[in-house]
Amino acid sequence: MKGLKALAAVSALAMWSAAAMAQDAPAAPPPGPPPFQGTDLATGPWSFQTAQADFDVDVVARGLDHPWGLAFLPDGGMLVTERPGRLRLIRNGVLDPTPISGLPDVFAVGIAGLMDIALHPDFAENGLVYMAYSKNSPDGKEQALAVMRARWDGAHALTNVEDIFVSTPWYGSETQPERCCGQGPAFGSFGGRILFDPDGYLYITSGDRNYGELVRDPSNHIGKILRLNDDGSVPAGNPWVGLAGHASEVWSTGHRNPLGLTYNTLTGEIWESEFGPRGGDEVNRITRGGDYGWITVTQGFHYDGTQQEGIRNRPGMIDPVLVYGPPSLNPGNLAFYDGTQFANWHGDLFLASFTQGLLRYDTDVVGMPRGEPEILLKDLGQRWRDVRNGPDGNLYVLSDMADGVVLRISPAN
Amino acid sequence: MKGLKALAAVSALAMWSAAAMAQDAPAAPPPGPPPFQGTDLATGPWSFQTAQADFDVDVVARGLDHPWGLAFLPDGGMLVTERPGRLRLIRNGVLDPTPISGLPDVFAVGIAGLMDIALHPDFAENGLVYMAYSKNSPDGKEQALAVMRARWDGAHALTNVEDIFVSTPWYGSETQPERCCGQGPAFGSFGGRILFDPDGYLYITSGDRNYGELVRDPSNHIGKILRLNDDGSVPAGNPWVGLAGHASEVWSTGHRNPLGLTYNTLTGEIWESEFGPRGGDEVNRITRGGDYGWITVTQGFHYDGTQQEGIRNRPGMIDPVLVYGPPSLNPGNLAFYDGTQFANWHGDLFLASFTQGLLRYDTDVVGMPRGEPEILLKDLGQRWRDVRNGPDGNLYVLSDMADGVVLRISPAN
Repeated sequence: MKGLKALAAVSALAMWSAAAMAQDAPAAPPPGPPPFQGTDLATGPWSFQTAQADFDVDVVARGLDHPWGLAFLPDGGMLVTERPGRLRLIRNGVLDPTPISGLPDVFAVGIAGLMDIALHPDFAENGLVYMAYSKNSPDGKEQALAVMRARWDGAHALTNVEDIFVSTPWYGSETQPERCCGQGPAFGSFGGRILFDPDGYLYITSGDRNYGELVRDPSNHIGKILRLNDDGSVPAGNPWVGLAGHASEVWSTGHRNPLGLTYNTLTGEIWESEFGPRGGDEVNRITRGGDYGWITVTQGFHYDGTQQEGIRNRPGMIDPVLVYGPPSLNPGNLAFYDGTQFANWHGDLFLASFTQGLLRYDTDVVGMPRGEPEILLKDLGQRWRDVRNGPDGNLYVLSDMADGVVLRISPAN
Repeated sequence: MKGLKALAAVSALAMWSAAAMAQDAPAAPPPGPPPFQGTDLATGPWSFQTAQADFDVDVVARGLDHPWGLAFLPDGGMLVTERPGRLRLIRNGVLDPTPISGLPDVFAVGIAGLMDIALHPDFAENGLVYMAYSKNSPDGKEQALAVMRARWDGAHALTNVEDIFVSTPWYGSETQPERCCGQGPAFGSFGGRILFDPDGYLYITSGDRNYGELVRDPSNHIGKILRLNDDGSVPAGNPWVGLAGHASEVWSTGHRNPLGLTYNTLTGEIWESEFGPRGGDEVNRITRGGDYGWITVTQGFHYDGTQQEGIRNRPGMIDPVLVYGPPSLNPGNLAFYDGTQFANWHGDLFLASFTQGLLRYDTDVVGMPRGEPEILLKDLGQRWRDVRNGPDGNLYVLSDMADGVVLRISPAN
């Protein structure tokens, strides 16, 4: 049965873009409302008529605990990570009640925990899966971002589990010194998105751990996007290989909390979404060796209400393609639609948001967003964490909630 | 001694950009003057005061026969190709009078011949060099673009010479059928620029052989940019691998005669310059899988004076970043300056031209040209074929003339 029939309107997001272009520093906004926790979701399915497509939305799985990352299996199933540290299997449209065993201990505090998952490019042959997670030091006082690799048996067990990457430096809330501007605790801002590009390189987003001053140090992994080979070794073509004082894993720098990372199959470019400070959320086109400015430049306000330190056009630093706020968007992942189910969405950019639904942008032929976004799925009241192209040409979204769901967006019947 | 002291002015190139933006199709221009053959070059050196830098220009070598491509050796020397089919060595600032032996027969007719050269990324260890050239079929009736690989002994001999790539299809002027729009002979438009990116992939520009209709066929190498491994095999990550009816070597398509190709070390992007029809020369930012429009779209006029078939914004096709003409620019190679000798030129785009000197564009932090170009070296009356970053931070240019030169551009003494 079809439930809610709604028109998704192009919303008042126009004000965001306008604010973003302002060259005069605005006054600090008042503290925002408490974080949006989302609302209970009905059974569905739902039907929507929108600007470019009529589509149905149905629940693939529910009852997931803060699902974070999604990988499609060659057999049509899916693997889904849950932030508290579980890996779940959906097969033949059914969520397997038994989590997959063998994961390492995950430091799951606040927004830290088990994060994204990606399959090895030759997964069909080798069964290798990769997951990003926040990891405790042996004494439990410090943490780091890690990427594990494991062999999955196709059922309920991981074997050969090992970390192919652990970020440096380790540190924790206890060891954080005085930092500027009301930055949050060390258990926030881990990043944690991962993907393989067609050449088989693994990209990893690493957040600033709420210690933005460290991002400016090129010798660490804090606030960087990293590029590795599938075994964790460093590709010889990375931009700072062999340069003294530079971490060779780094592909780009100047990121705060990069929670989205996607490969646009239509252009071959990597794009990133980034949780900024208040009113400083960003979407960036990632170039090799690029510096995206944090903590020196942001268009947002620090959490203590002090002003942003820069706006735009700082020499050597790359401005975002899109910026949001205030109010903040709280972005999740992003994806360029490359499927065949929605002809009018070809190449469009979709951005998941905790507070503003699922944003869709028209794009031009080189993948640049055009105009204001269309807001989809906001009425469902969910905190959208992930958005993905499915191998069937449909779009899939995850909600980061205690009763989280996997939803499918398919053409209207 | 210093010779000519001149101010290079920002020229009347403004008209080009303006014409490029016109949406109404202009009337066909009258046939242009005969090709510019250049003028005799004095001994030099020369000194120039320009908008962003004062520099000296001196002759590194002269008496080269249509030099086409340049590679810097680890010992500070250079290898230079001559279009008729010779490879020359410059060492300790002196042009070795003996050409290097061992090259295959080169089809050198018109603008075809021996073209670009690149060193293997591990050249210091393996001594491998790569050269693009136009190649005759056994019966001499048809030609193809080929890339040879050879081991150089560091003196006067190549060994282990083999073609790692030969374009398809073979054909020649005798076998060319009726084509539209006054396109030229099959011995024109081979492309022939090659480069290795930091990941060790080899890119090759392949021209349309003056048979633009073939460019639209994805199963051949005509009017494409190709990407190969160092042994000529196809990288698994190429955009059309495994797709029926598509040549797996292709990285991008829709090119006419791509005579320039460069890797911007500051952004990790590949840019291309392209000899278009009358008034349709282009500079393009190359994306994986991109279609740059030829022969369906061009902003120029065909040589028979018929109108261009498209202007801009054709769905699925990527417009050029820069376009020139009429009159045409006749572009050679291009380079983004990444050296340390000219602080004000950091990241700037340089484009060699046969008729308009050496163009310099300011760029923004993502490498996009800004504003009108500054014209350099036009007073020297040379057909500039190549421009390169030297390992010493200076710029080097080649003139494609019967008495061709290698010139060095270094800060004013």
